[in-house]
Amino acid sequence: MDMVEAKLAQVPAILSEVGIDLWLLFARESHTVHDPCFDLVVGGDVTWQSAFLLTPQGDRIAIVGSLDRAAVEMRGHYRDLIGYVGGISEELRKVLTRLDPQRIAINFSLDDTMSDGMTHGMFLTLQKALEGTPYGTRLESSDRVVSALRGRKSLAERECIRAACAETVAIFDRLTPRLHAGLTEKQVAAMICEEMESVSGLTLAWDPDHCPAVFTGPESAGAHAGPTDRVIEPGHIMNVDFGVKKDGYCSDLQRTWYFLREGETEAPPAVQRGFDTIVASIRAAAAILKPGVTGGEVDSVARTHITDRGYAEYPHALGHQIGRVAHDGAGLLCPHWERYGALPDLRIEKDQCYTLEPRLTVEGHGIATCEEIVAVTETGCEWLSRAQERLYLV
Amino acid sequence: MDMVEAKLAQVPAILSEVGIDLWLLFARESHTVHDPCFDLVVGGDVTWQSAFLLTPQGDRIAIVGSLDRAAVEMRGHYRDLIGYVGGISEELRKVLTRLDPQRIAINFSLDDTMSDGMTHGMFLTLQKALEGTPYGTRLESSDRVVSALRGRKSLAERECIRAACAETVAIFDRLTPRLHAGLTEKQVAAMICEEMESVSGLTLAWDPDHCPAVFTGPESAGAHAGPTDRVIEPGHIMNVDFGVKKDGYCSDLQRTWYFLREGETEAPPAVQRGFDTIVASIRAAAAILKPGVTGGEVDSVARTHITDRGYAEYPHALGHQIGRVAHDGAGLLCPHWERYGALPDLRIEKDQCYTLEPRLTVEGHGIATCEEIVAVTETGCEWLSRAQERLYLV
Repeated sequence: MDMVEAKLAQVPAILSEVGIDLWLLFARESHTVHDPCFDLVVGGDVTWQSAFLLTPQGDRIAIVGSLDRAAVEMRGHYRDLIGYVGGISEELRKVLTRLDPQRIAINFSLDDTMSDGMTHGMFLTLQKALEGTPYGTRLESSDRVVSALRGRKSLAERECIRAACAETVAIFDRLTPRLHAGLTEKQVAAMICEEMESVSGLTLAWDPDHCPAVFTGPESAGAHAGPTDRVIEPGHIMNVDFGVKKDGYCSDLQRTWYFLREGETEAPPAVQRGFDTIVASIRAAAAILKPGVTGGEVDSVARTHITDRGYAEYPHALGHQIGRVAHDGAGLLCPHWERYGALPDLRIEKDQCYTLEPRLTVEGHGIATCEEIVAVTETGCEWLSRAQERLYLV
Repeated sequence: MDMVEAKLAQVPAILSEVGIDLWLLFARESHTVHDPCFDLVVGGDVTWQSAFLLTPQGDRIAIVGSLDRAAVEMRGHYRDLIGYVGGISEELRKVLTRLDPQRIAINFSLDDTMSDGMTHGMFLTLQKALEGTPYGTRLESSDRVVSALRGRKSLAERECIRAACAETVAIFDRLTPRLHAGLTEKQVAAMICEEMESVSGLTLAWDPDHCPAVFTGPESAGAHAGPTDRVIEPGHIMNVDFGVKKDGYCSDLQRTWYFLREGETEAPPAVQRGFDTIVASIRAAAAILKPGVTGGEVDSVARTHITDRGYAEYPHALGHQIGRVAHDGAGLLCPHWERYGALPDLRIEKDQCYTLEPRLTVEGHGIATCEEIVAVTETGCEWLSRAQERLYLV
């Protein structure tokens, strides 16, 4: 079964569970402004205004422009296929009247990007199309549907993520012997890309601007910035944030290296203590990660572990879900900050896959980070990445 | 000057022209749900809620999450850069209060995809952030700003499109001698991709699902469907819809071939007449295409040319703008159909680049199409593609 069919097969039970009578995807030019739910349940793009309708009874209805029809038909996912030439609204109203749903989920969300693929213009277009019907007032966010569908990874999906992690760790293993002081961040990034390109079927997991991200020394810029011409010096901590996509699924891992100064055979105590604190905070968070706890609780364990030892708190969430994209949406291990909205109160579910990625600054040396990936089991979690346990020394 | 700087330089005059005091881009995770305006005036992606503010006075202000800040700074386009950790709304309200704009354009549009990159969830987030200020009621569509900024191509942009067209025509020229009856549509598509890959720096202009699209014979599916295992037979018309991206700009061209039957040295009169009608309808449309006429008027000239000769009308628009993406947004040569909204009434502007792509069916043989690209000049238009004038015979 392909991944789109596998995801479509999960939809009816999830709609029943959350009490939604109809999940309506409504989009146009989806190649240009892309609703991430299309990857899950459509499996390709459309040009003209298109509606994809899914119900708890297993209906799969597509209403698409006449020239998109053949492409949707060839993909084979939507048995009930309606084409139009002039405009979509008449056919859409007909189908809605026949189904008469009380609760209609559409793809918008204040908090979850992955449930927020409908543009505001398409929302207004939908409201206009539904004028004079009762359905315009029955629209609500699909966030619970999308969160469950995207978050609950099948075994096949978890194995894809595990395989992407293994490739990434292997790339780090091949990188370490090539490293030496005097390289620039950009040179290290280029080496990582070379190592990736030597394996067929791997692409970067996110924007090549900052994948890989490489940071060395006390002046480094922080996450989500690209590598610079800054030179690695003895005494620097260097960290890398990097992920690959393999068979449609991503990894996203961080690792930390220390560059020995003349005469040193190990890292200075402050560096070692920083690294050990990161590793221990990840273990502490993983130890309480299981179905039913909230993302806020898990974040708080790692955050407190770090601040209790006298470090500043990390200026971001502890971890995000990962899957077809590196940041895979709702269900976040994060604090109660405005930018995270209601996400810290969501409860962890079985089969979700999370990153764990705290960070701290070691004064005068740089930033210590590790990022690991775990899958939630019935009673806890299992590691999808082979964790970094010892600081890499160069 | 890079393309983002060139586009940013156009912004103040366009804002003055349309009477907008502030253009506000508001987005998050822009790699996943991508606002196409980011390619024009941001030049990279952001992770957390971010605001980019542009004014007629030339202000360029960015408010971004702390970990995005370094990346935005490195790109160098936004001189006035504000980072935040907890939430964006306080900084956003401060900046708005200082600028006190009366008319604020944001990226939503009923009709134009390229102006509709803001999600409905981000619209609601913005309204929430502006509660208690007068600015929530001053929001309007950016469609006139985006249409002008995206549509008015600089000379450098027009030359990029011309170069992409030349590569595409060269690929067709190399393809023709390789064609013979007995090939499948998929085999022809693979040959086109091979020819493209033999030139460095070219990628497909749209979704590989249906780029190239190849249709042969009377049963072919119509546009926007991928190639099938259908076999080319003598007596078939075959057409190809294909474009490449070169240096960030696209081509999108269609061409028509006829496969001679035993004993034939030219196409049957019905096929020739169909092809000639297409070529003449394109010329007729190009002859009236100039600043000030509406897209509906241009479409109507080609459409009537075809229906006057006894063919059914084509079930789509005559042409679209082209640029960084194949379907480059507002300003469409299209009829007054519901799905096109107000677009047919927009007036053509100097320096826009349009495709011209009518089609018609020749009973028993297949579909005749050509697609050419023109740039609007002060008094008419000039061809960016070397037009197909004679039916290709195989």
